Amino acid sequence: MAGTDRRQKLIADGPVVVLVNPQLGENIGATARAMANFGLAELRLVSPRDGWPSETARANAAKADHIIDAVQVFNTLQQAIADLNFVFATTARQREMLKPVRGPREAASALQARHKAGERVGILFGRERWGLESVEVALADEIVTFPVNPAFASLNIAQAVLLMSYEWLAAGEAQLPIHEPPSTPARREELFGLFEHLESALEIANYFRPAAKRPTMVENLRTILHKAQLSQQEIHALRGVVAALEGRKSRSRGRG
Amino acid sequence: MAGTDRRQKLIADGPVVVLVNPQLGENIGATARAMANFGLAELRLVSPRDGWPSETARANAAKADHIIDAVQVFNTLQQAIADLNFVFATTARQREMLKPVRGPREAASALQARHKAGERVGILFGRERWGLESVEVALADEIVTFPVNPAFASLNIAQAVLLMSYEWLAAGEAQLPIHEPPSTPARREELFGLFEHLESALEIANYFRPAAKRPTMVENLRTILHKAQLSQQEIHALRGVVAALEGRKSRSRGRG
Repeated sequence: MAGTDRRQKLIADGPVVVLVNPQLGENIGATARAMANFGLAELRLVSPRDGWPSETARANAAKADHIIDAVQVFNTLQQAIADLNFVFATTARQREMLKPVRGPREAASALQARHKAGERVGILFGRERWGLESVEVALADEIVTFPVNPAFASLNIAQAVLLMSYEWLAAGEAQLPIHEPPSTPARREELFGLFEHLESALEIANYFRPAAKRPTMVENLRTILHKAQLSQQEIHALRGVVAALEGRKSRSRGRG
Repeated sequence: MAGTDRRQKLIADGPVVVLVNPQLGENIGATARAMANFGLAELRLVSPRDGWPSETARANAAKADHIIDAVQVFNTLQQAIADLNFVFATTARQREMLKPVRGPREAASALQARHKAGERVGILFGRERWGLESVEVALADEIVTFPVNPAFASLNIAQAVLLMSYEWLAAGEAQLPIHEPPSTPARREELFGLFEHLESALEIANYFRPAAKRPTMVENLRTILHKAQLSQQEIHALRGVVAALEGRKSRSRGRG
């Protein structure tokens, strides 16, 4: 169609939108439409309830077929964000978590800055009924919360996607003081690999005592590692540290 | 219901939203919901195609019944805005009109300023298929246009209402509440204690090979720990990690 060339130029990039366990095809379609309105292109689904492809989604995408056609489906959230460098989780309410919480505008500026610096970035949106689980939020680097009327805070997923997409485009058009992150954070799968390596070593070392405190201890350690925004090289170095301390002779391990 | 008092306080005011000849009850309902999300209350309809009241609208309002119940219906746009002091017309595209054209953010700031000065203000949204007629735009004081992907500019009415409502609330809250994790970085001596503990453990584990690279390796590890801006508690946790991995039984060591 006539607009295709121009569109393809506009949608070449931007944050990946990740919907976790979306229940309704209507919302997936409305999400695609909202993304297209503001120049986002890449939609990933984690275990959509009604499977994929979805004709309901396509029917509700208002001709954002280029996004529907390019949807990728994953079994787990970890897989869905494995290749990304930085991830925001959206939540409707304040959480007792040790992660920075941003408004949508500030988050969009940060995403633009990281994107311009060559990072692959993403935004997570939870399922319709209860949003993201804490364990899912924990996989993200920072949190976005929407400023809503506290007496009526039921923001629909596609509406949340719309607001973030709108702010993304607005942040790109504004002349913002660009903060350049000093080094590219590793892909999330590398960070998760470090988590697993460290935690299994600590398990063997009998670190997690009492057992009831294990989840909190794990979360605290992960928070520290998230905060450091580790590069690939730094993760490699830390895996070497864990390997050395747990008594392995070589720093080049099968898992590293 | 429990939230009513609080809600009524929140929705006492704000711009009037005027939908001109809305065709679909779904969109009227979604408009009410979007308004409620961001604390707007007053919805007016000019000659809705399918009449009023509308059960479809109510079903799509996600319990924003207080807005649906208070809807006012008018025969003409002139009547619908008769009592207002200042009106924006929303348009999807540039028009050949001699009125100022604003972005949503700038328009929301202007609305807040006028509202605080005691003016009654409103925002006009056109019918689904072709927006506002020129003669209708001419009744407004200024124009709002949304920054969208020009290759995919089909913003739905309820989405446009959502963005304006969102910007209204954001403009009212001078600063979004930014939550930084409430931790004070530890004193430097605590950080240096962690450095020494980690490095001596790594020395024993024969991590620093070849010896010539030791200074660089130490510097890299310290950089990581600096970046994380560790709190006192986090330093304590990390010293526990090192102690556990180096094979000590107790996490409370003489040096910790």
